[in-house]
Amino acid sequence: MTDQETTSEDEQLSELYADFETENLIPLWTQIADLMPAVPKPKAVPHVWRWDVLYPLAARAGDLVPVGRGGERRAIALANPGLGNVPYATPTLWAAIQYLGARETAPEHRHSQNAFRFVVEGEGVWTVVNGDPVAMRRGDFLLTPGWNFHGHHNDTDQPMAWIDGLDIPFVHYADAGFFEYGSERVTDEATPDVSRSERLWGHPGLRPLSGLQDTVSSPIAAYRWEHTDAALREQLLLEDEGQPATVAPGHAAVRFVNPTTGGDVMPTIRAEFHRLRSGISTETTQEVGSSVWQVFEGSGRVTLAGETQELSKGDLYVVPSWTPWSLTADTEFDLFRFNDAPIFERLHFNRTYTQGSIR
Amino acid sequence: MTDQETTSEDEQLSELYADFETENLIPLWTQIADLMPAVPKPKAVPHVWRWDVLYPLAARAGDLVPVGRGGERRAIALANPGLGNVPYATPTLWAAIQYLGARETAPEHRHSQNAFRFVVEGEGVWTVVNGDPVAMRRGDFLLTPGWNFHGHHNDTDQPMAWIDGLDIPFVHYADAGFFEYGSERVTDEATPDVSRSERLWGHPGLRPLSGLQDTVSSPIAAYRWEHTDAALREQLLLEDEGQPATVAPGHAAVRFVNPTTGGDVMPTIRAEFHRLRSGISTETTQEVGSSVWQVFEGSGRVTLAGETQELSKGDLYVVPSWTPWSLTADTEFDLFRFNDAPIFERLHFNRTYTQGSIR
Amino acid sequence: MTDQETTSEDEQLSELYADFETENLIPLWTQIADLMPAVPKPKAVPHVWRWDVLYPLAARAGDLVPVGRGGERRAIALANPGLGNVPYATPTLWAAIQYLGARETAPEHRHSQNAFRFVVEGEGVWTVVNGDPVAMRRGDFLLTPGWNFHGHHNDTDQPMAWIDGLDIPFVHYADAGFFEYGSERVTDEATPDVSRSERLWGHPGLRPLSGLQDTVSSPIAAYRWEHTDAALREQLLLEDEGQPATVAPGHAAVRFVNPTTGGDVMPTIRAEFHRLRSGISTETTQEVGSSVWQVFEGSGRVTLAGETQELSKGDLYVVPSWTPWSLTADTEFDLFRFNDAPIFERLHFNRTYTQGSIR
Amino acid sequence: MTDQETTSEDEQLSELYADFETENLIPLWTQIADLMPAVPKPKAVPHVWRWDVLYPLAARAGDLVPVGRGGERRAIALANPGLGNVPYATPTLWAAIQYLGARETAPEHRHSQNAFRFVVEGEGVWTVVNGDPVAMRRGDFLLTPGWNFHGHHNDTDQPMAWIDGLDIPFVHYADAGFFEYGSERVTDEATPDVSRSERLWGHPGLRPLSGLQDTVSSPIAAYRWEHTDAALREQLLLEDEGQPATVAPGHAAVRFVNPTTGGDVMPTIRAEFHRLRSGISTETTQEVGSSVWQVFEGSGRVTLAGETQELSKGDLYVVPSWTPWSLTADTEFDLFRFNDAPIFERLHFNRTYTQGSIR
Repeated sequence: MTDQETTSEDEQLSELYADFETENLIPLWTQIADLMPAVPKPKAVPHVWRWDVLYPLAARAGDLVPVGRGGERRAIALANPGLGNVPYATPTLWAAIQYLGARETAPEHRHSQNAFRFVVEGEGVWTVVNGDPVAMRRGDFLLTPGWNFHGHHNDTDQPMAWIDGLDIPFVHYADAGFFEYGSERVTDEATPDVSRSERLWGHPGLRPLSGLQDTVSSPIAAYRWEHTDAALREQLLLEDEGQPATVAPGHAAVRFVNPTTGGDVMPTIRAEFHRLRSGISTETTQEVGSSVWQVFEGSGRVTLAGETQELSKGDLYVVPSWTPWSLTADTEFDLFRFNDAPIFERLHFNRTYTQGSIR
Repeated sequence: MTDQETTSEDEQLSELYADFETENLIPLWTQIADLMPAVPKPKAVPHVWRWDVLYPLAARAGDLVPVGRGGERRAIALANPGLGNVPYATPTLWAAIQYLGARETAPEHRHSQNAFRFVVEGEGVWTVVNGDPVAMRRGDFLLTPGWNFHGHHNDTDQPMAWIDGLDIPFVHYADAGFFEYGSERVTDEATPDVSRSERLWGHPGLRPLSGLQDTVSSPIAAYRWEHTDAALREQLLLEDEGQPATVAPGHAAVRFVNPTTGGDVMPTIRAEFHRLRSGISTETTQEVGSSVWQVFEGSGRVTLAGETQELSKGDLYVVPSWTPWSLTADTEFDLFRFNDAPIFERLHFNRTYTQGSIR
Repeated sequence: MTDQETTSEDEQLSELYADFETENLIPLWTQIADLMPAVPKPKAVPHVWRWDVLYPLAARAGDLVPVGRGGERRAIALANPGLGNVPYATPTLWAAIQYLGARETAPEHRHSQNAFRFVVEGEGVWTVVNGDPVAMRRGDFLLTPGWNFHGHHNDTDQPMAWIDGLDIPFVHYADAGFFEYGSERVTDEATPDVSRSERLWGHPGLRPLSGLQDTVSSPIAAYRWEHTDAALREQLLLEDEGQPATVAPGHAAVRFVNPTTGGDVMPTIRAEFHRLRSGISTETTQEVGSSVWQVFEGSGRVTLAGETQELSKGDLYVVPSWTPWSLTADTEFDLFRFNDAPIFERLHFNRTYTQGSIR
Repeated sequence: MTDQETTSEDEQLSELYADFETENLIPLWTQIADLMPAVPKPKAVPHVWRWDVLYPLAARAGDLVPVGRGGERRAIALANPGLGNVPYATPTLWAAIQYLGARETAPEHRHSQNAFRFVVEGEGVWTVVNGDPVAMRRGDFLLTPGWNFHGHHNDTDQPMAWIDGLDIPFVHYADAGFFEYGSERVTDEATPDVSRSERLWGHPGLRPLSGLQDTVSSPIAAYRWEHTDAALREQLLLEDEGQPATVAPGHAAVRFVNPTTGGDVMPTIRAEFHRLRSGISTETTQEVGSSVWQVFEGSGRVTLAGETQELSKGDLYVVPSWTPWSLTADTEFDLFRFNDAPIFERLHFNRTYTQGSIR
């Protein structure tokens, strides 16, 4: 180094930054604007995936790509365009279409990642969760909480596709993932209409005395469409009768919950079903945390950060953190939603902004 | 007083005790054996009340005693023979048969005491809870948690009777009771099959987004027999299939719970339904806290502190704290039970002793 | 019975009531006014016990009544004049002066009842809780939660007296009491200044890694006067500086808590220390549940249901449920209070009324 | 596209993958090995930063880089070599040395990120948290929970440096950050020895009645070295006396906790202090989640994934998720540790493996 007294401050600074780099150090003052913005600036972007694009691509994969040990699942993930080349719908959430051809089996495994399935159309597959065969049918919401063995098998001559939701991106980010292979085939090939978990737990307000210990995730393996539909229908009928029932005028909604606690079905994932009357619009809302929505029935429009897109059956879209969103129903409009809100609520980072008031 | 030196110790002691009495003091050492026994020594005694005695007495009251403001309810309480002349089934629990004649109304009121109804036979009455008319039918378990206005009206030409359970003795003991009169007639005379509370909350695993705040007591006004029966039946079928489901071999049981928490329906009262296969006996059990049981269907025997009694439909019996009890089923045997276990669990006094192991 | 048609209604009614009695039944309609009043009507009455009466009586008992196995403790209980001849300060709470002569020992035992000691004057006794000797000194609040073995021994040539508080009346009422004898002498006769529990747990905001499991009752055996005094003094100094710290102007107060939860020290008993500046009066307050207060230092007045009494050091008084009370300080005024509020809060019966607003 | 029948499967597959890419889709089967490994495979690596390197670099920054609005803090972050060029000690945790020259002020701001300071040497700076000036001295652990305004000012003619710990990486990842500027100077320039928060909350087992509402983060702004040191010393003395107190033989440890709940000081960050007797080694442990340790006093060695490094005063090292670690003390050895365990416990991903047993 040259004589300190003649060294310019700029040279000293450059040398300091070089020494920082050598010593695996980075100063805050060059990073703070990006690191700590005034409000969240997600890299993830709003995006819509069309069911009439997704399903044919999944079917082509069904023809070309076998399902089995190693690849494990014929699942094709939504890759948020803002996140770079990773199979993440949002920074925390995985959303994929999974496709199982006639008579195919996806082998059993288990992992610490929490998973669910949602069925927008079709039937004929049983997912077997810790040995309990669970029929999958249109409108059903099905759980595979972390560390439960599970596989799927198609008992029909028709293919079936559905949506998988998991916390894979979060678990990968957080280095919290464990994974184990299970049976090559599902451990129970029975095809009952109703799973054992539903027979034990699917009675409103009734808890088996054999199940008094609270569980981290819901013990109900399948939330059936007939119940979801009835709950939403009754909310709108009660509203018609002038009774409090809907979350906003013309907007019925239910949350899928763990009956042992009344809380979310799994520690990282919230799941809800929404029904808007034709013509209804929601207030524009911003939330900390990200969501994935899928249209179940009807048509309407979503406005995401000011841009409006038409939606119809099966279409999926993502709402990144703090992105303003609103929905408008052009018909009666049914949508399934899942998000990472339990993470933010449990860590007390949740914030919601709706029309001028922070809650 | 005589010269201290010549006063005997006995005299001094008598004087001391007299002074204690004057000053509103009582020494521990004369009381401890009764106050603090090695195990609970309840004054309440085991007792059986027969439905074929109770019902005719209630019917006679129906002929002779009007129902209305002041007396409020035509309810006739089980008075535990051990407790002296008080209308208490146990130190904490009230159990009564309530009888409402054809077209009669029991006026609305509210109180801090928690209440429920259980229907062993009959129908035709609607209990109106905070304006929500709730049909009462055989096998139904109906809630009126503390401080909810409620009245009953019989919409038929037949009388109807049912069981009321409350925490009146506890609230009276604890000086915690508040009471207010409401409407002379029920505020909604509609007679729907299903209450609004059930339409909003009675869907398994589904929580309305308009009801995300946890509630102290269950928001479900009626737990219907068809659900209870199905839940018990499925437990026995699962047992037949070799699956874990029953609380003990041949013994199916459910607890009625608050869907917002998974916990008991009300802060002081637990309610359960038990079904024993014919021929099954339970283990002899001792529990801190007291229970009231009612036979719903079938016949069998209960052994209470070593004495066995035959039971048939509608019979009620009480189990005082720490009294050994066991049940034997002579047919398929359905029983409703309520107790004060939430008090003891929340205050950490709960203990159970079953066949040699303290839990 | 005579011919039914000629029997008057009165006769029929008399017969009905006689049959009720035979069958161990009592109708609600004759009882409801007493059973379910509009607001709590406690049998317990407000009452003051004077320290200068209590202490000499205890000393006389010290001369006349030995302490030892069987009687267990030389404890003389406040007997509420409204409750009949029972040693209960209130329906739920036991309060007694306990007196231990020079070199005496009170033998070890344990019980499910929760207990504490509060020392208004004196020192020289060690209470040994599960083998941990705990020095007792003026101003200290000492715990013996349910089912911990404990005995006391006086290591000096002077007698010592203090106040015992327990939930004996509640546990007796609720048939929840278990009792076991322990060692005839205390199991550790050491006389350290500080107990082991304090050395492990008495560091503010620090939790031992060996104690991460939450405990039902506080693991701290002694809450020392120097801490209580400092906490109260700082609240008043902060108030002087214009900072929020006191519970009301001129009124400093702390609650003794379980450091594993931040909640009450024991499941049934709340304990607090209050300091009023000279000249300060509290608002008149009504609370569900009962309290016992003891003056620690200074003088003032309490108004109980409209009647005012002078108070000075050591005086004890009880406030039954829903009885209006207020305090006025004639000097700086220090008071210890314990009550049964945890019972009412855990069972959701708590209500407080202060100057027109129900909280 | 050419004739379908003559197209090879490979070509079809390439076309399918190209279409996936066009449609923002990525298949699971090409990603699963990286995404869902059998056990966590963190990108973060174990690394040690030396205090005798860090401090001089911070001092050079003190000469060359002003502190003030915009850059906000003269903080230099540990950048984990495995994470690419980001200022993250681990995927979730920020750790930096902050340096404040004589008489300098770091302006006030607030952010949703949770922060603490730990002082390994020096004194003379007050951190002002929501208007409460908090002295910083060697051994102190100081909190700035999310959304509290805070600034720092050096009231002496000497520089001072300390360690900042935050959840910046987690909050950035999760898009949950909010940030606001406050006062240019600290809002209270007083220099008291003890903060107001300590005067209100720093009394063991005592809770102010003005603070009965539980808080998300601890209300104690400073955990003082004299308390931490005393707690650790007592644990070792109790161990000498044969009493249970230490977490393992020769290993004393405390967790800094929120006195309103007994839980962690902030929702995302756990902080602990460990003291090993000379010669003691810990068992080799693997944990889900990452930690940062700093040597406070003494010397020893850490073994991280099989590699051992010498440690002395001020040295910092990081332990990525599931990386085996153990410590050996060559003298009495005092270490401060913070980690992200609350995130994993609240989301139920926590696992620990120690010498053959998974807990």
